[in-house]
Amino acid sequence: MTSQPYSPGLNGVIAAEISVSLLDTDLEMIIVRGYDLIELAQNLNYTDVAYLVIYGVLPTEAQGREFCQSLAEQSEIPEELYQLFEMMPKSTVAMDALRTGISFLAGFEDPELLNDNSREANLKKGVKLLAQVPSLTVNSYRALNNMPFVRPDPSLGYMENFMYMLRGEKPDAVSLDAFDRIHTCYIEHEMPNSTFVARAIASTLADMYGAMVGSVASLKGPLHGGANEAAIEFILAIEKEGGPPRAEAFVMEKLAANATIMGFGHRVYMKKYDPRAKFLMEYIPKLASRIDNGEELMSIYNTVEQVMFREKALYPNTDFPIGLLYYELGIPVPLYTPIFLASRVAGNIAHVVEQHENNSLFRPRVIYNGARNLHPPSSPISPG
Amino acid sequence: MTSQPYSPGLNGVIAAEISVSLLDTDLEMIIVRGYDLIELAQNLNYTDVAYLVIYGVLPTEAQGREFCQSLAEQSEIPEELYQLFEMMPKSTVAMDALRTGISFLAGFEDPELLNDNSREANLKKGVKLLAQVPSLTVNSYRALNNMPFVRPDPSLGYMENFMYMLRGEKPDAVSLDAFDRIHTCYIEHEMPNSTFVARAIASTLADMYGAMVGSVASLKGPLHGGANEAAIEFILAIEKEGGPPRAEAFVMEKLAANATIMGFGHRVYMKKYDPRAKFLMEYIPKLASRIDNGEELMSIYNTVEQVMFREKALYPNTDFPIGLLYYELGIPVPLYTPIFLASRVAGNIAHVVEQHENNSLFRPRVIYNGARNLHPPSSPISPG
Repeated sequence: MTSQPYSPGLNGVIAAEISVSLLDTDLEMIIVRGYDLIELAQNLNYTDVAYLVIYGVLPTEAQGREFCQSLAEQSEIPEELYQLFEMMPKSTVAMDALRTGISFLAGFEDPELLNDNSREANLKKGVKLLAQVPSLTVNSYRALNNMPFVRPDPSLGYMENFMYMLRGEKPDAVSLDAFDRIHTCYIEHEMPNSTFVARAIASTLADMYGAMVGSVASLKGPLHGGANEAAIEFILAIEKEGGPPRAEAFVMEKLAANATIMGFGHRVYMKKYDPRAKFLMEYIPKLASRIDNGEELMSIYNTVEQVMFREKALYPNTDFPIGLLYYELGIPVPLYTPIFLASRVAGNIAHVVEQHENNSLFRPRVIYNGARNLHPPSSPISPG
Repeated sequence: MTSQPYSPGLNGVIAAEISVSLLDTDLEMIIVRGYDLIELAQNLNYTDVAYLVIYGVLPTEAQGREFCQSLAEQSEIPEELYQLFEMMPKSTVAMDALRTGISFLAGFEDPELLNDNSREANLKKGVKLLAQVPSLTVNSYRALNNMPFVRPDPSLGYMENFMYMLRGEKPDAVSLDAFDRIHTCYIEHEMPNSTFVARAIASTLADMYGAMVGSVASLKGPLHGGANEAAIEFILAIEKEGGPPRAEAFVMEKLAANATIMGFGHRVYMKKYDPRAKFLMEYIPKLASRIDNGEELMSIYNTVEQVMFREKALYPNTDFPIGLLYYELGIPVPLYTPIFLASRVAGNIAHVVEQHENNSLFRPRVIYNGARNLHPPSSPISPG
């Protein structure tokens, strides 16, 4: 095997055999447990699709009801988590707060269950994490921003509760609908870095919590989860500099300076629009009236898209519309990546379950380009 | 590239070009920055070798002194960390406590430095983490076991301070010498799972702290960092069941039952002894008088080693002697893996620096073995 050519970043290397999802690069389509992800997002709730991703099949009506009930019942986090969030320095990055919260939570798990990597135990721990991640996400951010905690309300639906904690009040139906569909679009995406990291950690037979902590650490990276934040910041920068009339020139100047414009292009979706972006962009006008500058931002959005296609033949990927949609929904920008992570928890549960069920320890080799044949002095140098 | 054969666990796949270290499988030797690791451990202090691993060259005397001073000055952790450890449920696993501690610590970093992935910034953050990891390791464990905190004493050397916090008193010279050399033997080992995970996380341009958190999560796994604990537990089980006269039959029964005996064999060291094990075993008799049952455990150790070679032609790997050595040094067994991690922080700093300096996002592909062409119902199933 060592005669394989070295491919930086494991580009093109097959690293796992999986049944959770596939980016079909020929069809440019996201297959999730056999379904087209866009069809799922068009027709079903996030909780339906989360069930599908985690258990491998769509729920019956009774299973769906029970699943939602289980999520609601387990939505509250231990009191010590709220104390932890209050102890964090206010400058803590939201993703770091979430990472610390999930890591801390492991200590509250039943020790026997914690170390049990069976399918049943993993599903149990995974569903609990999925239930708790909205409160972890929102209330860590609230503490960092001196906002009062909003405890989960188990009488609300999963995504309704998420929005309720975000806003401090129940969402209207249109906002909830859009938020739910965005969450579904983010739920699973084959094996991006954060999923790969989760599987790599799980392959040491480390537990579900550890794998999930690693995926948060990975998704924080600007090359991975941060693109939706960068997308809205780009649009807002144009608004600040002169609004729609300035948009075309702004983009042209960035391109002339060889700046990377986040939210465009994709390793996989080359020939057509990222199907998630195509589906979700329809929600932008529906929500535009919810903010004062909705029409203006929408106009900037459209100009940026047109110029990028004209100049670079690049389509938006899913992060470009989602950046604007989250903004229309009133979500604070530093929460974009943590909410993306919260959605992806369902996918990563499925990957950890699968990794533990058919495990091979990830342990690749290297090319060594360092020195050889050096010899140290015969006695210590530093005081030790 | 997709025509490469699939190799589970990336076995034999080259995943990175590195200059930190190499397991030379022909010579069965660990090359660290051009030196034989065993020569380094024989001749130098842990702090000398940590400097070498991190900066790429051995320190001058002045650099070595400055490095130790810098470690001492930065050895104290923020007060909130001690509060965090006290808040943790007592059943928290020591590695999970350490993982949470490092993750939490990121919030105390200067926000600009935190997100700066330059070599200079990474070295600064890395050395601070190396300075703090002994207190994180020891004092999280102390809190979980209702033992009073022992704050780092900046007047002591790095490894002396580590042992002082572990024991609550300064170590004797022989114990310190052994502890220092074990720590050096664990410092770096090419690209095991925990190092690979650190690099994979860093490849998203996530920061040093996130990469380190991932490596703790990985090293916790029983297939990775837990072998030294399993080794001493095996020896202690024999002691409990009848001591040295029972050792041979105990091993034979385990082998007959096809049980895996941890601490023997290695993917790389096939033809000869793990060089670290060979070097460190000499310290076992030197420390045997420090515990009441030292002679007995040493006798069991020798019998297990002889039987494993006679029956399976397997040599001990480094975890087998280290399990006994840590026991002789009075280190609580649940701290074996966290101390291993603490040593490896130096290696992982170097890997993160290198990854950020010459980055490719790790994003492999998969073989999809799931369903296709399924279609969802046209309306939601669960209540949402």
